[in-house]
Amino acid sequence: MLTVDDAIGRLLLHAGLRVSTEEISLADALGRVLAADMHAGIDVPPADNSAMDGYAIRHVDGSDPNQPLPISQRIAAGHPGVNLQAATAARIFTGAEIPAGADTVVMQENCTEIEGSVLIRELPPRGENVRARGQDVVKGQNMLPRGQRLRAQDMGLLASQGVSRVSVRKRLRVAVLSTGDELVEPGTATGPGKIYNSNRYTLLGLLRGWGFEVVDLGIVADRVDAITQAMQQAAALADVVVSSGGVSVGEEDHVKDVVASLGSIDLWRIAVRPGKPFAFGHVEGTPFLGLPGNPVSVFVTLLIIGRPYLFACQGIESWVLNPARQKALFSRRGNRREEYLRVRSTAAGLELFPSQSSGVLMSTSWGDGLVRQCIDEDILEGEPVDFLPFSMLS
Amino acid sequence: MLTVDDAIGRLLLHAGLRVSTEEISLADALGRVLAADMHAGIDVPPADNSAMDGYAIRHVDGSDPNQPLPISQRIAAGHPGVNLQAATAARIFTGAEIPAGADTVVMQENCTEIEGSVLIRELPPRGENVRARGQDVVKGQNMLPRGQRLRAQDMGLLASQGVSRVSVRKRLRVAVLSTGDELVEPGTATGPGKIYNSNRYTLLGLLRGWGFEVVDLGIVADRVDAITQAMQQAAALADVVVSSGGVSVGEEDHVKDVVASLGSIDLWRIAVRPGKPFAFGHVEGTPFLGLPGNPVSVFVTLLIIGRPYLFACQGIESWVLNPARQKALFSRRGNRREEYLRVRSTAAGLELFPSQSSGVLMSTSWGDGLVRQCIDEDILEGEPVDFLPFSMLS
Repeated sequence: MLTVDDAIGRLLLHAGLRVSTEEISLADALGRVLAADMHAGIDVPPADNSAMDGYAIRHVDGSDPNQPLPISQRIAAGHPGVNLQAATAARIFTGAEIPAGADTVVMQENCTEIEGSVLIRELPPRGENVRARGQDVVKGQNMLPRGQRLRAQDMGLLASQGVSRVSVRKRLRVAVLSTGDELVEPGTATGPGKIYNSNRYTLLGLLRGWGFEVVDLGIVADRVDAITQAMQQAAALADVVVSSGGVSVGEEDHVKDVVASLGSIDLWRIAVRPGKPFAFGHVEGTPFLGLPGNPVSVFVTLLIIGRPYLFACQGIESWVLNPARQKALFSRRGNRREEYLRVRSTAAGLELFPSQSSGVLMSTSWGDGLVRQCIDEDILEGEPVDFLPFSMLS
Repeated sequence: MLTVDDAIGRLLLHAGLRVSTEEISLADALGRVLAADMHAGIDVPPADNSAMDGYAIRHVDGSDPNQPLPISQRIAAGHPGVNLQAATAARIFTGAEIPAGADTVVMQENCTEIEGSVLIRELPPRGENVRARGQDVVKGQNMLPRGQRLRAQDMGLLASQGVSRVSVRKRLRVAVLSTGDELVEPGTATGPGKIYNSNRYTLLGLLRGWGFEVVDLGIVADRVDAITQAMQQAAALADVVVSSGGVSVGEEDHVKDVVASLGSIDLWRIAVRPGKPFAFGHVEGTPFLGLPGNPVSVFVTLLIIGRPYLFACQGIESWVLNPARQKALFSRRGNRREEYLRVRSTAAGLELFPSQSSGVLMSTSWGDGLVRQCIDEDILEGEPVDFLPFSMLS
C-alpha cells in the first residue's frame, strides 16, 4: 500500500498548470489565483501624511512653549497645502499630506489655538505623527506572489496601488460523475435497493468552495456505452475528471475498464482510513481521479489527496497544511493506516464523533475538522494531536 | 473606553435577523444559512447493506468449513434480492441490500467458489460486514440546526436524505460606502494629496466571502448633500449600512452629522488596536456600522467586532471563535488596548510582521492570521498565544 504522502507525491509528479489566464475586474477577484507576481507601481502612502488631527510645524520652531506660531494654512485630506513658511504652523487633519518644510505633527490635544495662532504646549519628538511615504509598500516591491489565491485584504492591497484589473488563472473546470445502479437523484422517488446520491453534492460543494467550475454530469448508468459516452464528454469539457465509486480492485463496475480503454488507469491502494482504493489515470488526455464510493471516503480522499493535485492544476502554488496541535479528549490506538478522524473542537479540546465508519456522513457534518492520526500513532486523552479544521482545507 | 467584548455585546443587543427566507436548489446552497432545523425524513442507509464484496449467509449455516453452500442468488447494488433460502448463500456486492433471512456477509477473500456453491473457509462473527439500516442517520433525527451555514458535507448529508431544495435565509444586503476627498478609485488617475481607496475592496471581499450581497456605493463626495443622498439610498436598498472613515470624535467629516440627522448615532471608543473609533447607529431605521478609516483598522474591526453583529443579522447562529493556541516566535509587552497582531504561522510557530501600524495593509496580506493579545498580556517568545487564522474568520 502507498502512504498518503507517497500518493500525494505521485499525483504531484503528474500535476501541472492546466488552465490559461484571463484578465478580470479586481472587484470580482475574491478567491481567484494570481497569474503573475504583483509588484508595486507606486509608493503607498504616496507622500508623508498626518496620522492625527493637529498642527504641522518645523520641529525647530516648536521649542518655546510660550511663543505661539501663526497658523499660515489649513490642510485637509485630499487638498494638498503649500510650502510651510518658517515659524508658522499648518492646521492639518488625519490623512492630509504634510506640507514641504514641516517635519512634525503636534496632536491637537497638546495645543491651544488663540486668535489665529497656536501654542504648542507639549512638543513631541521630531517626526512624530508623520506617516512616511512608502511606509506600507515601496514602489517595485513584490507584494503578492504568482499562485496566491486572493483574499479580501489582498484585494484591498491591490486597490491601494490603483490596480483595477488583474490577471488570474481561469477557473479549473472539473467534471464530476457518479456511477452505480443503486443511486437515485435527490428530489426523485426512491425504491427498493436504491439510495440517494450524496457524493455528487459533497463534490460539488468542495470543488466550488475551492473556486473551480464544476461540469456536473450527474449519475451515469452502469453500462459500458453510457460510461464511455459520459467519460468522453467529461474529458472534452473539463480540465480534470473526478468520479466516485467503482475503483476497488475486483469490484463490479465498468468505470475502470472504460477509463483504461479511453486512456490509462492505475489502481492504487492507499494506507488511509477512510479511503484506500484510489485511481489515477487519463481519459483521452484529460487527467482522471477515481475516488472511493463511501461518502466519508469521498470527502476525506478529495480533501487530503485530491486537493493538492487539483490546486496544482489550478496554479495555486501554496497548499501545504500546517496542522494546529490541539488536545485530544479521547484515546485511540494507532494502526497500519493513516486515519482522518472526524472531531469537533471545543474550548476543552477535540471531541471524537462516536462512529468513525466510512458510511457515516453525519460525522463530517457534526464535526468541524479532522484529526490526523499517523500510522502506528497512539492517541492519548489529554495529549496534543494534529488537527486540521475544515476551514483550513477550504 | 469599551472593551472588545463589551462592544460586541452592545452590538448584539441590537442585532436580530434582518432577512426573510427563500427556497433554493440544494446544488446552489453552498455557504447559505439554514432557515429551519433539518430533520431526517428517512433512515440512511434505508436497509441493511453489504460493506464488502462477498457472500451473504445465515450465520448458523456457515459453521461447517467442509460444507459448501449452494449460491441461490446474485445481488448487486441497486438490484434487491429475494428472501434467502436456508442453507444457501447469496453472492453479494458492496452497497447491495442484505436479503431477508441473511445476517452476515463473508468477504470473498475468505471463501472459495466451486461449481455453483461456496465454501466458507473463515466464518466471521454474526453481523459482520453488514452496514445496519439507520447507521448514518435515523428518521426523525435533527441533522443540521437552523442557522447553520451549509458546507460541502452538509450538502452531501441533505442529498443522502433525498432533499433537493432547502429553505435558507436570503443573503444579507450590506451597503458599503467610503467618504473622503483624498480618495480616488483604482483604475483612475491619481493626483496631489490623493490616495487610492482600498477599503472599498477589503470590505467587498470580506462581505462577499461571508456570503452577503454587497450594495456598492463607491466613494461619496465629502459634502452634506452627497452623503445624505448616499445614506438614504443605502438605507433603502440594504439591510445594514457600513461606512469607513469619519467616525473619530472631532474629526473633519460630515458622516456623523448626516447619520445623526437621518436617525441616530453613537460614537464609541473601543480599547482595541488597530481600531478604537467605531460608530453604531441607524439611518432611517436601517442599522449603520461606522468603521475607522485606516486600512488595517477597517479589516480588523470588521473581522472582530462587525462580524458577530452581521452574522446575527444574517441568522447565522454560531459565530463564536475558538482560537488555537500556538507558539509565539516574538515577545511583546501588553498595553491598555486589546491588540490584534498580524502574524504568519510556520512549522516553528507564529512570526510577527515587523510593522504593526494601522496604515500598513501589507501586514494583512503577508500574514495568515491574527494573534489576540489581551489587555496587559505580555507575550513571551516560545510561549503559546491565542491565534485566529484568517480562514477561521471566513
